[in-house]
Amino acid sequence: ATATTTKKRKMVAKLNEQERAEKLQPLLDGGWRLVEGRDAIYKEFVLKDFNQAFSFMTGVALLAEKMNHHPEWFNCYNKVQVTLSTHDVGGLSSQDIRMATYFEAQAKLLK
Amino acid sequence: ATATTTKKRKMVAKLNEQERAEKLQPLLDGGWRLVEGRDAIYKEFVLKDFNQAFSFMTGVALLAEKMNHHPEWFNCYNKVQVTLSTHDVGGLSSQDIRMATYFEAQAKLLK
Amino acid sequence: ATATTTKKRKMVAKLNEQERAEKLQPLLDGGWRLVEGRDAIYKEFVLKDFNQAFSFMTGVALLAEKMNHHPEWFNCYNKVQVTLSTHDVGGLSSQDIRMATYFEAQAKLLK
Amino acid sequence: ATATTTKKRKMVAKLNEQERAEKLQPLLDGGWRLVEGRDAIYKEFVLKDFNQAFSFMTGVALLAEKMNHHPEWFNCYNKVQVTLSTHDVGGLSSQDIRMATYFEAQAKLLK
Repeated sequence: ATATTTKKRKMVAKLNEQERAEKLQPLLDGGWRLVEGRDAIYKEFVLKDFNQAFSFMTGVALLAEKMNHHPEWFNCYNKVQVTLSTHDVGGLSSQDIRMATYFEAQAKLLK
Repeated sequence: ATATTTKKRKMVAKLNEQERAEKLQPLLDGGWRLVEGRDAIYKEFVLKDFNQAFSFMTGVALLAEKMNHHPEWFNCYNKVQVTLSTHDVGGLSSQDIRMATYFEAQAKLLK
Repeated sequence: ATATTTKKRKMVAKLNEQERAEKLQPLLDGGWRLVEGRDAIYKEFVLKDFNQAFSFMTGVALLAEKMNHHPEWFNCYNKVQVTLSTHDVGGLSSQDIRMATYFEAQAKLLK
Repeated sequence: ATATTTKKRKMVAKLNEQERAEKLQPLLDGGWRLVEGRDAIYKEFVLKDFNQAFSFMTGVALLAEKMNHHPEWFNCYNKVQVTLSTHDVGGLSSQDIRMATYFEAQAKLLK
């Protein structure tokens, strides 16, 4: 009933060319856009009302804390504007892809 | 740009027979059940995981605070067990119907 | 056990000179500042970490939904930057004072 | 700017006698009590109102998701009743101590 586990934390690195083609491009096609002057992505989500927007934000917050990877985000009423980038690597990493993917899935449920 | 509005707060009363037939029965058909020994309703919601369960709870909390009508609820991981009743009237009121309806709609989105 | 209440919604109007001296000035003395080009106030709160920042935001969200008065706010990790103004009156109202006062009290607890 | 880290997950095991004396006893002295028939602890927290209770619960939820260790909890208005135990070890572990400690600290701030 007890366990010792050794977990290798995944290397976090800037996305390479192949990852940008395979994982970032679908997000850009889905409405995310590159931020000028930074290696970061941005999207505005419009939910039904504040109730849905803050429910949405709470799910993101729980994931952010779990991943120890936090968004830069702005909210007013039903709008949630998000910027994602990975401070430790000075640009986009797989963590941003994972978080953006959660944003997409959750917004699709709640919209 | 300024306004004076007079808002008549809806009378909160125990559901009458007609309301029970028209508004409560559909909830009972949808999985809510009457609590023994109290005029209250209960349902267990099973969400995908804790992230979804607590996102769900946050939306309910926002509505509860807005209505000033708060559920009795239990959570463990992906389960949310809810009991609704209106303290002020000693039983079920239209506020419980409204809140149960929100639970149903939100659980349908998030499940 | 039942009640019909008539509630007169408080008139929401732009703060007048006296209110600005009595209610707004203490907030400005406490770190809020007037936004340029708009009748609005702004403050940055720095909490201990994301856990505290989002707990803080949740309390504000519950109040916002209850008042039907929502902040413009930005968060990154432990920082919460807030702008308050009342859309319906095109400037600062008593609702902004009430909300700013909650921000102050809650931030004092959680910091 | 990139890093590979190897993190050894702490062994999760039932608390031994020494840990119960040193870490569990202070919690029992502070109002937690042992649950009958299970190796678990329970406490009721009474906050000021629902706003504070749910702010409190949000902080706990963020920690729970981060630790992947979730409480059994019940809420009604300003009351939060919590039962802690570690499913994987069939009883109390260091994870419950850590979570109970967070409950204590956060309740002290918000009360």
